[in-house]
Amino acid sequence: MGIGDDGALVNPSTNTQLVVATDTLVESVHFPADASAEQIATRALCVNLSDMAAMGATPRWFTLALTLEKTDVQWLSGFSRGLAEVAKEFGVALIGGDTTSGPLTISLTLLGEVPIGGALQRSGASPGDSIYITGTLGDGAAGLSVLEEGATEGSVLDRAIGRLRARFYRPQPQVQAGQKLQGFASACIDISDGLVADLGHICRASGVSANLVSKQLPIHSEVTQRFPQQALNWALTGGDDYQLCFTVAESNRDKIDLLIFQGELDATMIGQIQPAREGQCLVLVDNVGAEFNRGFDHFGH
Amino acid sequence: MGIGDDGALVNPSTNTQLVVATDTLVESVHFPADASAEQIATRALCVNLSDMAAMGATPRWFTLALTLEKTDVQWLSGFSRGLAEVAKEFGVALIGGDTTSGPLTISLTLLGEVPIGGALQRSGASPGDSIYITGTLGDGAAGLSVLEEGATEGSVLDRAIGRLRARFYRPQPQVQAGQKLQGFASACIDISDGLVADLGHICRASGVSANLVSKQLPIHSEVTQRFPQQALNWALTGGDDYQLCFTVAESNRDKIDLLIFQGELDATMIGQIQPAREGQCLVLVDNVGAEFNRGFDHFGH
Repeated sequence: MGIGDDGALVNPSTNTQLVVATDTLVESVHFPADASAEQIATRALCVNLSDMAAMGATPRWFTLALTLEKTDVQWLSGFSRGLAEVAKEFGVALIGGDTTSGPLTISLTLLGEVPIGGALQRSGASPGDSIYITGTLGDGAAGLSVLEEGATEGSVLDRAIGRLRARFYRPQPQVQAGQKLQGFASACIDISDGLVADLGHICRASGVSANLVSKQLPIHSEVTQRFPQQALNWALTGGDDYQLCFTVAESNRDKIDLLIFQGELDATMIGQIQPAREGQCLVLVDNVGAEFNRGFDHFGH
Repeated sequence: MGIGDDGALVNPSTNTQLVVATDTLVESVHFPADASAEQIATRALCVNLSDMAAMGATPRWFTLALTLEKTDVQWLSGFSRGLAEVAKEFGVALIGGDTTSGPLTISLTLLGEVPIGGALQRSGASPGDSIYITGTLGDGAAGLSVLEEGATEGSVLDRAIGRLRARFYRPQPQVQAGQKLQGFASACIDISDGLVADLGHICRASGVSANLVSKQLPIHSEVTQRFPQQALNWALTGGDDYQLCFTVAESNRDKIDLLIFQGELDATMIGQIQPAREGQCLVLVDNVGAEFNRGFDHFGH
């Protein structure tokens, strides 16, 4: 039925469960005040789509709660354009929402579907499972750093900077990867707060520890070359990457490695799940507790 | 699965459609800055539940996007208490959300269910249908007026004022009434912006006009006695009542009137749907165009 009635009316598919995720972006907190309407819209929807990816869900519908200081037709036009572009790419429909007056805040609720019992969760990791990450790490933090530097017009033309800015405003939700992991991954999460923090969520939900091998972390060469001091630190704790971190039991490793080998899944093995240590669910880096190392860049790479 | 994973996982019932509604409340726009956390929470959830009521849906789940200037344990405790109380009363479960830092904004997305094809919509009203309203009108506007007057401690003890304040912060979503109207009402909407404005939405969606009989509008005696000049005006345009306005075809009037007669439905017949006039979908009051009367109180009551 779509927008215009008191609520939207949609038809869930049979034999599916519904996945629901809400994310809010606030001006100056989640994006710089000088971000364009289009950039804000694309980032907001991509970040929410990433939650669907982490569950292995197929995103279907979303609602938008938009709070704006004043009605600005040009701003709204840019916002709609950005939203529509991402919505089209991922096949999600805007089915309703609410526009209110106040400080700029964007809250999206996404609805997706997974086959019954097929959802990827955080709680299934076991000792011996391998830890993988999709794509590359550190791009989000590097992109934010580039934005905060306030790139000049000249440097915008720099290809690497252009790519990193895009990684911040247009993260690439790993929806297809998430769907391929159904039945193979024992646990999954998307990297919004940084690898160590988010893998920590898997560890606590699963009652295990994890050890990451720093040399195996996939970091884009543009990041290591431009930011040699920060690259590893950003990869471990930077956040805003929206890649998927997932674990795979020994019995399923062949299947995942085949997907990777065939180019159907872009992922890298980065460590191992271990038993919890004295009841503590820790994330180690090269067998050293992450909390004992405030600067991971000291490791070199 | 509930809160804690990237998204919540829920199981829709079979043979139902999903109803999704989002509403946002912003401090100083949708509630006074001195509102308590508990009052804000109850109002936010009740307003959203009213959208479910207007569709005839059974509310099931909701997500909360809460933006707060700072973490205030006492405030959060009051907010949670208010939310939990209303959630329990209406049988809805908080399944997820997002807490962010910024100006106080509350955005809720509710999910409900209706039997396939059973949803009440705005578009089904036909000439000859009778127009009904649940409960009484004008309470919301009277409640807001009482709040804006800044009632003193003494006057809080005044029972009527206490009731009107409650009607603002704790509107009573007509969820059960909405469910009873399934199959009987040809169109339905909840009164958030005022009877004339919201009935206007039914008229435009259905391609019809409407005539209201001012003498038949149900207004609580506390409102007419305390605010004799404003009562009728508030009933027609005041908003914030969260009653249901619905239309019923001649063939179903007996069934609705029986429900009312048996005390199963608290509703009053207040007018008639008419054909659109020269392509215009108008809301008339006593056969005079609402737009030609800026002060409905002149009618007397």
